[in-house]
Amino acid sequence: MTTYLPPLRDLSFVLEDVLELPRAWAQVPAFADLDADTARQVIEEAGRFASDVLAPLNGPGDVQGCRLEDGRVRTPDGFAAAYRAFVDGGWPALACDPAVGGQGLPNVLNGALFEMICAANHAWTMYPGLLHGAYACLHAHATPELKAAYLPRLVSGEWLGTMCLTEPQAGSDLGLLRTRAEPAADGSHRLHGSKIFISGGDQDLTDNIVHLVLARLPDAPAGSRGISLFLVPRILPDGTVNGVHCDGIEKKMGIKGSATCQMRFEDAQGWLVGEPHRGLAAMFVMMNAARLHVALQGLAHAEAAHARALRYASERLQSRAPVRVPGAGAADPIIAHPAMRRSLLGQRALVEGARVLAYDVARVLDDAEQHPQAEVRAAAESRVSLLTPVLKAYLTELGWRVASDALQVFGGYGYIHEYGAEQTVRDARIAMIYEGTNEIQAIDFVQRRVMADQGAQLLALLDEITAQAAAHAGSHGEALAAASRAVHAATRELVAQAAQDAQYPLRAADDFLRAVGMLLLGQAWLRSAQAAARAQAARPHDDFLAAKADTAEHFFAYLLPETDLHLTRVRAARAALPAVRAPAA
Amino acid sequence: MTTYLPPLRDLSFVLEDVLELPRAWAQVPAFADLDADTARQVIEEAGRFASDVLAPLNGPGDVQGCRLEDGRVRTPDGFAAAYRAFVDGGWPALACDPAVGGQGLPNVLNGALFEMICAANHAWTMYPGLLHGAYACLHAHATPELKAAYLPRLVSGEWLGTMCLTEPQAGSDLGLLRTRAEPAADGSHRLHGSKIFISGGDQDLTDNIVHLVLARLPDAPAGSRGISLFLVPRILPDGTVNGVHCDGIEKKMGIKGSATCQMRFEDAQGWLVGEPHRGLAAMFVMMNAARLHVALQGLAHAEAAHARALRYASERLQSRAPVRVPGAGAADPIIAHPAMRRSLLGQRALVEGARVLAYDVARVLDDAEQHPQAEVRAAAESRVSLLTPVLKAYLTELGWRVASDALQVFGGYGYIHEYGAEQTVRDARIAMIYEGTNEIQAIDFVQRRVMADQGAQLLALLDEITAQAAAHAGSHGEALAAASRAVHAATRELVAQAAQDAQYPLRAADDFLRAVGMLLLGQAWLRSAQAAARAQAARPHDDFLAAKADTAEHFFAYLLPETDLHLTRVRAARAALPAVRAPAA
Repeated sequence: MTTYLPPLRDLSFVLEDVLELPRAWAQVPAFADLDADTARQVIEEAGRFASDVLAPLNGPGDVQGCRLEDGRVRTPDGFAAAYRAFVDGGWPALACDPAVGGQGLPNVLNGALFEMICAANHAWTMYPGLLHGAYACLHAHATPELKAAYLPRLVSGEWLGTMCLTEPQAGSDLGLLRTRAEPAADGSHRLHGSKIFISGGDQDLTDNIVHLVLARLPDAPAGSRGISLFLVPRILPDGTVNGVHCDGIEKKMGIKGSATCQMRFEDAQGWLVGEPHRGLAAMFVMMNAARLHVALQGLAHAEAAHARALRYASERLQSRAPVRVPGAGAADPIIAHPAMRRSLLGQRALVEGARVLAYDVARVLDDAEQHPQAEVRAAAESRVSLLTPVLKAYLTELGWRVASDALQVFGGYGYIHEYGAEQTVRDARIAMIYEGTNEIQAIDFVQRRVMADQGAQLLALLDEITAQAAAHAGSHGEALAAASRAVHAATRELVAQAAQDAQYPLRAADDFLRAVGMLLLGQAWLRSAQAAARAQAARPHDDFLAAKADTAEHFFAYLLPETDLHLTRVRAARAALPAVRAPAA
Repeated sequence: MTTYLPPLRDLSFVLEDVLELPRAWAQVPAFADLDADTARQVIEEAGRFASDVLAPLNGPGDVQGCRLEDGRVRTPDGFAAAYRAFVDGGWPALACDPAVGGQGLPNVLNGALFEMICAANHAWTMYPGLLHGAYACLHAHATPELKAAYLPRLVSGEWLGTMCLTEPQAGSDLGLLRTRAEPAADGSHRLHGSKIFISGGDQDLTDNIVHLVLARLPDAPAGSRGISLFLVPRILPDGTVNGVHCDGIEKKMGIKGSATCQMRFEDAQGWLVGEPHRGLAAMFVMMNAARLHVALQGLAHAEAAHARALRYASERLQSRAPVRVPGAGAADPIIAHPAMRRSLLGQRALVEGARVLAYDVARVLDDAEQHPQAEVRAAAESRVSLLTPVLKAYLTELGWRVASDALQVFGGYGYIHEYGAEQTVRDARIAMIYEGTNEIQAIDFVQRRVMADQGAQLLALLDEITAQAAAHAGSHGEALAAASRAVHAATRELVAQAAQDAQYPLRAADDFLRAVGMLLLGQAWLRSAQAAARAQAARPHDDFLAAKADTAEHFFAYLLPETDLHLTRVRAARAALPAVRAPAA
């Protein structure tokens, strides 16, 4: 009932027709061997793994959940076997450095892998979800000894990694954390403290678990500038069990097959990663990668939910549509009813627009890491840094929205377990919270990415979009250019007003981010419509390509206008906010 | 952790200061004995029942859920005892006709009771939730014999009632239903068929359960004009068990303490209610009452979620706010952070606006039923009928939205069971689906309420709002008048276009309903701000009244502009929708 069909046609449309990646790969030495056929094979194989191995475990894993037995986590039936298949397939190493055993493929393909496995089974995907981030963090910051001991086994997937940040009193504000790290005589450290909300803090998929733990050294300054990063394995190099304990697992709204652990470090041996007191900086490497993965989760949920609703709407017969379906009996499939068509078109416009956006940023990330020209790498690095918080917040919000819209298509059947619609809604909700809540993303975007350079980088991007839109004859180009100019004006206003009122950007942040997100979707749809038109020259009777034009039309008529609403709120935020009080009990 | 505090202050503000109900009651003979003090006592007592008896069962009932044992439903621990206390308190009879044992209080007070018990425990409230509807249906349509046998025991709450409509193939389209009713020699009927999604289809709270079942007589015409309504008790008058079986209960996203039953009627004895083939008309009495109750559920979820988030935000310390809270240590309560204040103000504007709207319609319903002047009754009846689908759809959408916004305030703690935030989100979702999905409400509103009289009644209401807004000096009045004129223009356009394109209203329905819903919230906030200003004359230093002005300000700046977005979409819907196809598997 929860069958997942990988969106292979749209993935190849986005990567080949819209983003024209095979041409881009040819210009980058690291990807010179990669062509469209190979990329397509990798994606098809990943899609098969997602649909054949992971999707069947999704519903049962939700019902069974995880349990704690004698201090160890038991994951749902089948999860461990699926993980072995994942490792045997070589998937963990897909986009890792060949120097440490990786396959050196682009982030774009790793993104496609993660979109599909998350769409098929988000809870399961949480276990390998941090692998690439842990790899990137250690690759950039660990000592050669630590790298030699841990990197190859993380790259192969033999061991899994975690990020241990949050403590009960320290969530969005990591400066409040209390876990201590005492130096030991042998150069290692001993960690003491408690962490919560640790995904895969314990599990039964791998023999060892590599925890990356934020803690304070004895001489640490207060606040976020006194936090260091440590590698703390569950099993020590000599084979003994480290002082790392799972004291409980959370009862959650969704992703129930993923163990969210309360962890206790008691005299746990760990090794410093990066400089003392510079742990947050080292961890940020991991967090940026993690944020882009979370954005892909938003896309994945939207895709899974929409595709399922579309199939159901084609089969469910209720009431006569105003234009009857030829051959229908007493009732038409609900896909023929205007309300359902509108909902499904809106969902599709969000899903397919988000896909262009997500892979476009993954492509820029590949440039940042692998492009032969230093100035291209630097510009790409800035662009990724600018857009990461927008994608994390906006795409996860779309994931939640589309999941709920899709549930509604099922009527009462959406509220029960049977079709998986309600599970996707529950699973999707976490993505708006973890790896920094969407409100934190908005503050990060406005303060660190936009205000930090007086809007320069964002304004340049907006100028690009305006020029691209203005060059496109027709109403879509006009609408996009107008929206882009409006966001441009709002950006300049934000920068100008902030000089007198430093709190204005904080009040405006959420809606400013959403305005930019919707505008980027507009750019994505302009590019998609153009790419579809180009491709139609060769394939004039292709339904898939014809549908792109319809969906673009729907996007510009029904969705792009949300930009205006967000900008109205950005303007409203110029006024101070009143104090809010809780009523007396 | 899930403590519910009844919103007594706001209820008294809405009923006394905004709607000025005590003055209205004095003019209606049926309510002449009711004064503000008595009403306040009823509400306080109901609030105590909700917070003391029901709220403590809410979280545990969600975890435990219902189970089927030997063909009978077992509700969660404590549910049956709470129901006995509900009956002993005389709550079922609150708004029933004194001639059959009711207390004859206004629907407004019954509404306050149901807002509070649903906010405290939606799942439990499902059991008595249909009592009033079953009472109203039988009161209007049953034979004197049936009334004598069943009404007093429903009014007292000794027995509970159900609505048995849906079948697997017949959800939104009741015309497809197949349950048969064969006439028996004694004038009763024998029913055969299966029903699904029957709330409280079986339970262990009452000795008998009175099912109101839609079925077809042997000579019935096809479609929705061949459906009759039957009363089918679980226990027959002679004490034997009827052929009514619960074959299973659904696994659902939320309201897990409410048993959603698969029912099988096998040679079950039943009695016709109302005319043969006119069952839908008889059932509609019940469904309209039920729809207003569902609208109150939307309000209830929004209130419960927001109040909880507000308390948490006052206590949770994270990061320093741009303006520090006097006496705060390393971090401020998150209520001081702009992003949280904006979210909380928006939630409050939706909750309190929705409350005015819900009780205003309940007041009109009281006029429709009890006003001494026939023309007032008739006008009130029309108004209730016009607004019922708007309230059902719009307030349940707001319940879901506020519940999710409130969850976000908790960060990671919102996603786990501990504070109840995620349960409210799950519970709230059903209200957008049952008693007719929100899409069905929108079609009902546009086609049967608006197009049926060429928009006359709605246009008259819009003229009232425009006049009220224009009479109010200041920016809120201007904004509301502009929005009202815009909805007025859209309504005329809808009627004019429909003459050429009968499908246009169907395409525009959802957003047209939302535009009207948001406009009604605008009217509610204008009235609230005016009432608060009046009351401030006597109580100039009252924080609660001062907060009303702040929240109104927030509403007009941030929320009313959504009307424009909805109207933009209504205009977009003038274009035909393309066909939507499911991709080939």
